[in-house]
Amino acid sequence: MILTLALDAMGGDAGPEMVVKGADLALRQAKDLRLRYLFFGDDSSIEAELKKYPSLHKISDIIHSETIITNQTKPAIALRSGRKSNMGMAIDAVAKGEANAVISAGNTGAYMALSKILLKTIDGIDRPAIPAILPTIKGKTVVLDLGANIDCTPENLVQFALMGEAFARQLLDIERPSVGLLNIGSEELKGNATVQAAAQLLKEFPDLNFQGFVEGDDITSGKTDVVVTDGFSGNIALKSIEGAAKLIGHFLKDSLNGSFRGKLGYIVAKPAFRQLQTKSDPRLYNGAVFLGLKGIAVKSHGGTDFVGFANAIGVAISMIQHNFIKDIEERLSILTSKEERLPISTLTMEI
Amino acid sequence: MILTLALDAMGGDAGPEMVVKGADLALRQAKDLRLRYLFFGDDSSIEAELKKYPSLHKISDIIHSETIITNQTKPAIALRSGRKSNMGMAIDAVAKGEANAVISAGNTGAYMALSKILLKTIDGIDRPAIPAILPTIKGKTVVLDLGANIDCTPENLVQFALMGEAFARQLLDIERPSVGLLNIGSEELKGNATVQAAAQLLKEFPDLNFQGFVEGDDITSGKTDVVVTDGFSGNIALKSIEGAAKLIGHFLKDSLNGSFRGKLGYIVAKPAFRQLQTKSDPRLYNGAVFLGLKGIAVKSHGGTDFVGFANAIGVAISMIQHNFIKDIEERLSILTSKEERLPISTLTMEI
Repeated sequence: MILTLALDAMGGDAGPEMVVKGADLALRQAKDLRLRYLFFGDDSSIEAELKKYPSLHKISDIIHSETIITNQTKPAIALRSGRKSNMGMAIDAVAKGEANAVISAGNTGAYMALSKILLKTIDGIDRPAIPAILPTIKGKTVVLDLGANIDCTPENLVQFALMGEAFARQLLDIERPSVGLLNIGSEELKGNATVQAAAQLLKEFPDLNFQGFVEGDDITSGKTDVVVTDGFSGNIALKSIEGAAKLIGHFLKDSLNGSFRGKLGYIVAKPAFRQLQTKSDPRLYNGAVFLGLKGIAVKSHGGTDFVGFANAIGVAISMIQHNFIKDIEERLSILTSKEERLPISTLTMEI
Repeated sequence: MILTLALDAMGGDAGPEMVVKGADLALRQAKDLRLRYLFFGDDSSIEAELKKYPSLHKISDIIHSETIITNQTKPAIALRSGRKSNMGMAIDAVAKGEANAVISAGNTGAYMALSKILLKTIDGIDRPAIPAILPTIKGKTVVLDLGANIDCTPENLVQFALMGEAFARQLLDIERPSVGLLNIGSEELKGNATVQAAAQLLKEFPDLNFQGFVEGDDITSGKTDVVVTDGFSGNIALKSIEGAAKLIGHFLKDSLNGSFRGKLGYIVAKPAFRQLQTKSDPRLYNGAVFLGLKGIAVKSHGGTDFVGFANAIGVAISMIQHNFIKDIEERLSILTSKEERLPISTLTMEI
């Protein structure tokens, strides 16, 4: 089987140079897999880059788009260009069955909106969500949503929980993933009306390993396999964690540089520090899936380099191999059949 | 001048033993200052602890309360006991001018509500906020609110900004503190309606060094001296940062333990690691002030030990010395005179 990947060549701060170089690295990392790339964007600038990688060139096609949108294009304009732009054409290739997945490092808002229009959401899902896999003390945790949905209803959060659970089962290989709802206290009475109502719905949900509320520090302690939250809090939590990691790294460097013994100890233990650095390399966590769509769309960080972009391609390949969309559709069929009950329990709960 | 401190002896998970021991440490740390303590709670159990510290005993009074509330008491019941309980009586001592500040490690919700009733808010402030001082790459940053106010209006956020600015000027000794508003992107169009409206109000505010939106990772990068947010996002950000710090510490230990060179390097650089540990000791950041009240009320973490509680007492002393309440009242007089304009600009802004 050949896996066909649609790449938005113009997305990302570094444009075609980064995308093509990342595609080449992903091709070499894929080893035995048979890949085919479709590059969407300005043909001459893509061709100029592709020429540098002969074996990549052989398995790639360039599809020229009249309208070019880059990360400098305003989201509203990007959106209006619809399926005529590099981004829209790449997504449409998945919608038409010409590609198995699309990967873009372009503007998140435009990419999400176009994906929703062109790929459609799975039955039972109102809005797609972006999950991230984060390292924890125990292993890994899936956190969602990470910025796609700012204002969420309790029903949205329930849908995120089910998608996150399926994602953790497939991608992290956990049989019965535990699910927690992000709040500002683990006591049942804390938090706003939305998380209270969502907790009530999740508690009643059949066959779900729901563990109640978790707090910010539970994300990295690995208390639950899945952490559910709205996109506003989720984005703030994720970025706060990134920032804290940088701060500790800075403190560590400072402390070691501050004395002769510190410097010497650093030299002796250098391989261990290298290992630590590799473990927390943000590029290895690059590649966010839009969960809840009828096709596979992966968002790469706009500011990433080719290593990060290759990792995003790797995430897309892994999603295709796991036949993820089918799995999530099955899980969500419970939701569609249960849907009529949901509003009632929202009404009867006490806040 | 004698500084009189009202201590809730029954608050905190460890009760009078921890509170009295913490008061003793704070007394020794205060050196030249003349302190007087008022301990509120069950007189016999306080007396039993005080006996262990003769010099502390000499400067302390015990005020017995009929109703005892501990961290096991339900917040609603704690609240209902009003000024009759250990917590209520301690707060009331400040309201009546018998003490310069109150410190409690009791339930946050009850403590905040009782403080608001007994001490009253400063003119121009609807709700008090809890700030925290966090370490950053550049120095220190004030973040508020941290859990007192879950749902906030744009006007609440503006009030937090002004209080945070005064707090940073006084406690961090910064002449013209820069202020950022926490959001999920630094672009002007991002975020929910509340932060959008708050940003508009802050931009128009005279004589305020407002820098626009900041993101989660900007908290620890020290981009601005003050980071303003609602209590829900603020609490999640703070706890996520705490959790991330623990995770990196865990990774570091793991990497160093994983090889002979790592272990050796650790032994050589041990003093540097000790320094790092001291720098990130959460007990040194314990002691959250309720900003916006007409009296000084400091909340200690419920699970802290005597070192953390002593630090909370230190925060209260520092607030008294800076004559903080007067300073903030002056800053807020601008707000009261400007108040009529605020609703209009909320209406005219484009979301």
